[in-house]
Amino acid sequence: MTSLVPVTDPADPRLSDYVRLRDVNLRKSLEAEHGLFVAEGEKVIRRAVAAGHPVRSLLMARRWAEPLADLLDGLPAPVYVADDAVLEQIAGFQVHRGALASMARLPLPSVDTVVAGARRILVLEDLVDHANVGSIYRCAAALGIDAVVLSPRCADPLYRRAVKVSMGAVFAIPYARMTNRRDDLAKLRASGFRLLALTPDQASTPLDTAPMGDRVALMLGSEGDGLSSHWLDEADERVCIPMSAGALANGVDSLNVTAAAAIACHALLRA
Amino acid sequence: MTSLVPVTDPADPRLSDYVRLRDVNLRKSLEAEHGLFVAEGEKVIRRAVAAGHPVRSLLMARRWAEPLADLLDGLPAPVYVADDAVLEQIAGFQVHRGALASMARLPLPSVDTVVAGARRILVLEDLVDHANVGSIYRCAAALGIDAVVLSPRCADPLYRRAVKVSMGAVFAIPYARMTNRRDDLAKLRASGFRLLALTPDQASTPLDTAPMGDRVALMLGSEGDGLSSHWLDEADERVCIPMSAGALANGVDSLNVTAAAAIACHALLRA
Repeated sequence: MTSLVPVTDPADPRLSDYVRLRDVNLRKSLEAEHGLFVAEGEKVIRRAVAAGHPVRSLLMARRWAEPLADLLDGLPAPVYVADDAVLEQIAGFQVHRGALASMARLPLPSVDTVVAGARRILVLEDLVDHANVGSIYRCAAALGIDAVVLSPRCADPLYRRAVKVSMGAVFAIPYARMTNRRDDLAKLRASGFRLLALTPDQASTPLDTAPMGDRVALMLGSEGDGLSSHWLDEADERVCIPMSAGALANGVDSLNVTAAAAIACHALLRA
Repeated sequence: MTSLVPVTDPADPRLSDYVRLRDVNLRKSLEAEHGLFVAEGEKVIRRAVAAGHPVRSLLMARRWAEPLADLLDGLPAPVYVADDAVLEQIAGFQVHRGALASMARLPLPSVDTVVAGARRILVLEDLVDHANVGSIYRCAAALGIDAVVLSPRCADPLYRRAVKVSMGAVFAIPYARMTNRRDDLAKLRASGFRLLALTPDQASTPLDTAPMGDRVALMLGSEGDGLSSHWLDEADERVCIPMSAGALANGVDSLNVTAAAAIACHALLRA
């Protein structure tokens, strides 16, 4: 087994990749600056490695090293071990899930590249919640979505919580980030994708009856406001998930974006 | 407007309903002991009041009192106002969403009572995550579910985070908690419900093709392990949501329980 490096000082500069993992603003700038992301737990770390992400380092309580022994063997990266109390001081929370790994990001492919050959794709506009992004990737991977395209401001799929909620599906589904939302939507249409905008508006076309064509791009909007009017205008068709007659009486006028995405991916798979 | 009661001491015993709102274990025993729950934010508080829950007290930054003025007028409960820093010390987090209300729980109806007249119900076995429970109630309220039945150990729908994620749907959908899981499942069947057990097992009946009958009870299992073998055995039919051919290659062998619930509620509504 590789040699483990004990650490005892939460301020040890070798651990700076792991500081304050729940501080979203800090992490955004730290991870962008160093081109890293953090994977948490054995399963997710293994999937990140299998997807080709270079490991910068690992950090864990000593008891987690044994189950990872085969992975750690021959890994050209330091493996730091620390007590639970030290881990908590560094990460800012109790690290239940086992090991943490700091991984290097890979250059994202272009939109053109990820949608080449794809039949069904999701296009996410400005989702802000990392758990929602992770949840949507897990659905996409289970339900036959070939690629995901993110708006310029959509939340990062490699943020720790998104990776965790996705159960590693962020490594399985190819994705790209738009550089220009207007041009990139037009390019998708030019590539033969039918752009469907999902909206809670019950006067729009029920998703199950919408013509799909050979290539479908389903656009999903942000948690609070849904799709912007520009994206709604760019769509070939506005589609909705029909709600029950009693939904409004129940005080509910929409589904949350992950529920809507699940139902929509399921509908696309059956179409 | 009702008179506001300024508070400055986070240890003020009048605020004990609101302490450490993120400490799940503390909150479970505190809320059970006092028969209370906490509603957060104007919309949710209004829905809780409309559902008939008596208000024990409210606690908020002074700026939130004005939008709630009509509700506070004539309310026979104290309205405490405090600085943001004091609120954070009491609640244990930054209270962004506006007001907090401590509400009295009402006696839950029996299983028999909530399912009388219901056509489609959900039966939740031992879900542990409050956000998942809240999310499932929101789907249920949007997609025509008439009632929810909870296993004895299922997470509490009136826990603050469940209420918040449900957008108040926990007040719209009647629900009951089983006292005996074995007897209560048998009673549901005796009442004419067809018990469908949702499982990731792709060899089971695809949900879309399962006969539903006049009354359907869809059983959903806990996040980690799914339904227990006992519940699977009690079911009239085991049903699955078909995944794509590539799901396993993507490393995904199941949907999360909220995504599965959304797809299943949608399928029940269309059946």
